[in-house]
Amino acid sequence: MKLSAHSQQPIGVFDSGVGGLTVLKTLMEHWPHENFVYFGDTARLPYGTKSPETIYKYSMQIIGYLRQHPVKAIVIACNTASSHCIEPFIENIPLFNVIEPGSRAAIKSSLNKRIGLLGTRATLLSQSYQKKIKTLDPSAKVFGQACPLFVPLAEEGLIDDPMTDLAAYRYIQPLLQEKVDTIILGCTHYPILKKAIQKVAGPSITLIESGEALSLWIKETMDQGALAQNTVSSENRKVEILSTDGGEHFQNLALQILDVTDFSSKNILYRMVDLSG
Amino acid sequence: MKLSAHSQQPIGVFDSGVGGLTVLKTLMEHWPHENFVYFGDTARLPYGTKSPETIYKYSMQIIGYLRQHPVKAIVIACNTASSHCIEPFIENIPLFNVIEPGSRAAIKSSLNKRIGLLGTRATLLSQSYQKKIKTLDPSAKVFGQACPLFVPLAEEGLIDDPMTDLAAYRYIQPLLQEKVDTIILGCTHYPILKKAIQKVAGPSITLIESGEALSLWIKETMDQGALAQNTVSSENRKVEILSTDGGEHFQNLALQILDVTDFSSKNILYRMVDLSG
Repeated sequence: MKLSAHSQQPIGVFDSGVGGLTVLKTLMEHWPHENFVYFGDTARLPYGTKSPETIYKYSMQIIGYLRQHPVKAIVIACNTASSHCIEPFIENIPLFNVIEPGSRAAIKSSLNKRIGLLGTRATLLSQSYQKKIKTLDPSAKVFGQACPLFVPLAEEGLIDDPMTDLAAYRYIQPLLQEKVDTIILGCTHYPILKKAIQKVAGPSITLIESGEALSLWIKETMDQGALAQNTVSSENRKVEILSTDGGEHFQNLALQILDVTDFSSKNILYRMVDLSG
Repeated sequence: MKLSAHSQQPIGVFDSGVGGLTVLKTLMEHWPHENFVYFGDTARLPYGTKSPETIYKYSMQIIGYLRQHPVKAIVIACNTASSHCIEPFIENIPLFNVIEPGSRAAIKSSLNKRIGLLGTRATLLSQSYQKKIKTLDPSAKVFGQACPLFVPLAEEGLIDDPMTDLAAYRYIQPLLQEKVDTIILGCTHYPILKKAIQKVAGPSITLIESGEALSLWIKETMDQGALAQNTVSSENRKVEILSTDGGEHFQNLALQILDVTDFSSKNILYRMVDLSG
C-alpha cells in the first residue's frame, strides 16, 4: 500500500449520535495535523437498544459511506457498534473500535483486577469487553452494569442535575459493592456525565475513557506503518461533521461537547446527509 | 365506496415504538369485533427528537406499507407523527391522528380553559395541539411542557420509581403554577407513567389520554358511513403486531402494556418486518 498517497485523506469517525464527539474532541487534540470526518447517525439513534442484526446493518451502511468519502481509516466511536464490528481492517484500511483500547487501559489501571463496566444493554449483552479483557488478562474480573438512562440524560445536557446523580448512584453502587477499582465508561456518551459518575464513585476509582486509549492505538498503527500520518499545518486541517438528522439541538450539543463557540473557529464544516438515498 | 367489501380488513395502528400500544389496548377493548395490525418502528425510535422532514418521511413509508397490507383505516398512534400528518383521509381511507380527539376531549373537560400539554420537543414545536385547540375554542389557553425523559423512563418500565417521580415533578410543576385544570398526555408513552403524573398533579387535575377520545372519533366516522364496521365474532378477531426491530425487550414491554400473559391468549401474532427492503 502506498501510504503517502493516503496521508491527507481524513480519518472517519462514526457514532449513532453526538456521543462519539467526545472521542473526536480527544482525537482532534492528539492529532492536530489530521483531517477528520465525523458521521452521526442521529436519524436512527439510539443504537444501544437495537438488535445485533440492525446494529451491524446500520454500521456497514455508514462504513460503506465513509469508504466512498474516501477516508484513510475508520474509528467506530460507538461502543454498541464496536461490539459488533471488531475486524482490525476493512478493505485494506484500518478499522479502530473502542473496545480494544478501553480494555487495555482498564487492565493497565486496575491493581486488584476487578473492573467495572458501564454500557448500553446491547454492549453488555454482546460480552465484547468481557471477552477482550479475559483474552488480555485471564485473571481479571469484569462487573457489568447497563445504564439505559445515561444516554437521554446526556442528550438533554443534564450534566449537573439531581436526576443524573440519582441515576449514577443507582448504576454505580452495585459496582462499588463488588470492590472494583477501575470503571470503564463503555459508551461514548458517558464522558459527558463524568463529573456525576466520579462524584458517586469517589476519587479512588479510575474512570477509563475511550478517546485517550484510542489515540495510543492509532499512534502504534502509524508507527507500524499501517496508517500514513498527515503533514499539513494544524491551522489548515479540516473537520467535517455529518449527521443523518439535523436540527439546532444537535448542533448546539456538538458545540458544547467540542467546547467551541462556533464551528468556523476550528475549521469545522457541518452538513446533513441522507443515507436512504 | 363499497364499504362492506372492506369491513373485515384490519385497522392499521402505528407508532415509533411501544407507546402506541396504549392506544391499541384501548381500541381493542372498545372494538372487540375489529381486526388490528400494529406497526412499531422500533428500529428508528424515538421520533420525538427528529426533524419534521425525517418524521414525515418515516410516517409516509409506514402508511404506504400499511396501505399494501391492506387496511381499511389508519390510526397514527404517535403524537409526534400525528403532528406532521393531519390529513383526514389518505387514498380514500380514513386517517386518524391523536391530536384532534385529544384536543376535543381537553376542551370538553376544562372548566377554566387553561390546558396543560405534555409532549415531546417535536410535538410542542409543531404547535399542532395549540393550533387545533385555538380553532375549536379561541378562548382556551395552552401551556406546553416538553418531557424528553418520559419516553426512556417508560421504555425502561420505571413506572413506580423515584426517578420518574422527580422527572414528573419537574415537568408538571410549571403547569400547576399556570393553574391548569386539565393536562393532555400528548405522547402515547405517557399513559404508562400515568400513576406518577397523577400523583404529582393531584386528584383535581384531569389527565387526557388519546385512546378514549380516539374511539369516539372512530365511532362517529362509522356512523357517518365513511368506515365499515366488522361483524366477525370477537373470539375470532385477529391482532397482528409488527416491529422493525425485535428483541425480547420489545415483546416483554408489549405484553406488559397490553396486560396479557402471552400473545396467543388474545389471538395476537408478532413478527418483525424490514422496511428498508
